[in-house]
Amino acid sequence: MSEYQSTERTRVRRKPSRGSYDREVIHAILDEALICHVGFSVDGQPYVIPTIHTRVGDRLYLHGSTRNRAFNELSEGSPCCVTVSLVDGIVLARSATQHSLNYRSAMIIGSARRVTGPDEKTAALRGVVEHIVPGRWDEVRGPSADELDETQVIAVDIEEASGKARAGRAIDKRDDVDPEKWAGILPLEISTAEPIPGEDVQRDLPVPPHVADWRRGQ
Amino acid sequence: MSEYQSTERTRVRRKPSRGSYDREVIHAILDEALICHVGFSVDGQPYVIPTIHTRVGDRLYLHGSTRNRAFNELSEGSPCCVTVSLVDGIVLARSATQHSLNYRSAMIIGSARRVTGPDEKTAALRGVVEHIVPGRWDEVRGPSADELDETQVIAVDIEEASGKARAGRAIDKRDDVDPEKWAGILPLEISTAEPIPGEDVQRDLPVPPHVADWRRGQ
Repeated sequence: MSEYQSTERTRVRRKPSRGSYDREVIHAILDEALICHVGFSVDGQPYVIPTIHTRVGDRLYLHGSTRNRAFNELSEGSPCCVTVSLVDGIVLARSATQHSLNYRSAMIIGSARRVTGPDEKTAALRGVVEHIVPGRWDEVRGPSADELDETQVIAVDIEEASGKARAGRAIDKRDDVDPEKWAGILPLEISTAEPIPGEDVQRDLPVPPHVADWRRGQ
Repeated sequence: MSEYQSTERTRVRRKPSRGSYDREVIHAILDEALICHVGFSVDGQPYVIPTIHTRVGDRLYLHGSTRNRAFNELSEGSPCCVTVSLVDGIVLARSATQHSLNYRSAMIIGSARRVTGPDEKTAALRGVVEHIVPGRWDEVRGPSADELDETQVIAVDIEEASGKARAGRAIDKRDDVDPEKWAGILPLEISTAEPIPGEDVQRDLPVPPHVADWRRGQ
């Protein structure tokens, strides 16, 4: 099935033309976003925690220390919401209220499961590293048994999901249009500065291609 | 008072050295982040919604359409959490589990209040526009009475807050250090591409300085 089911909880009501339930669209947004924001409640109080995610099929993996309070709450099977957002540009109009951002976002509803098996844990950590820097995993030492024990991995099956996006130009109300007033889009992107080698790295060691050529975005 | 109170709900337990309750630090993170993620619960289900915020003293303002379901929930005085996150760089170590991100984040706990007075509403919208593009408000038509009516503004007083950050180099375990293996930081930043004028803008109209010179970050 190529679409997630649109439910009471995930239906995009406001400007539904901006909404999408398409698996491929939602997966692409999840995969491009470096981090996600995880929402969960404790005693009726909502919390929103930023963390790194990775997606494997229709499942997200999150990770954290075993001493991470947020993840201890999450691992109890409580309902959670994982949202990712990409800001693509600033929309500048001639009236204040027509200003906007161009963006792509995805909201996932699911419940958390604690991952205990070392193989699934290792695969999730591999996914997290590769999510941020594709090509990195094979260059580094994998997790030891102790390191796996110190790491919590949480799986969130994507039960419901919706994507939302705005793209394109500024739209002014007819009376506001004035060719002598600038309106338009300021595109934004994530860029890199020069990689900074650690002090314990041999001088003149080349920056590996998966770092030197790293880029994110469309 | 220069620090927010550290409470049961906002205390940074995991790696407390990364935590801060300093007003100035938290305000700077809130002001730099283009968007926030707002968490709230409906019938026990947490939702996390991305939106633009602005800060005025110890208060955040959020805005949305009056038809925005999230904001209708928020305006009922329900507890909410507003989190902002800035990703400053990728930390590349020689072992998988020592990888990390350099980041700054702030988590705000408060409850929502619906803003109804047109003056406070207008000031909040001014703040939202100026938050994204400083210098823009004075160049555009302000909101009409109808536009104000169609816009919901939510105030969240910062009742509790904490900041969290990681900065600096990759830290490898002693046995993993190998000068012939690259480790270090890949700094990330938000950059702009060439502004794209609308089709209804006079050719050769200069891009105004508040757009041409826009930048964000440290």
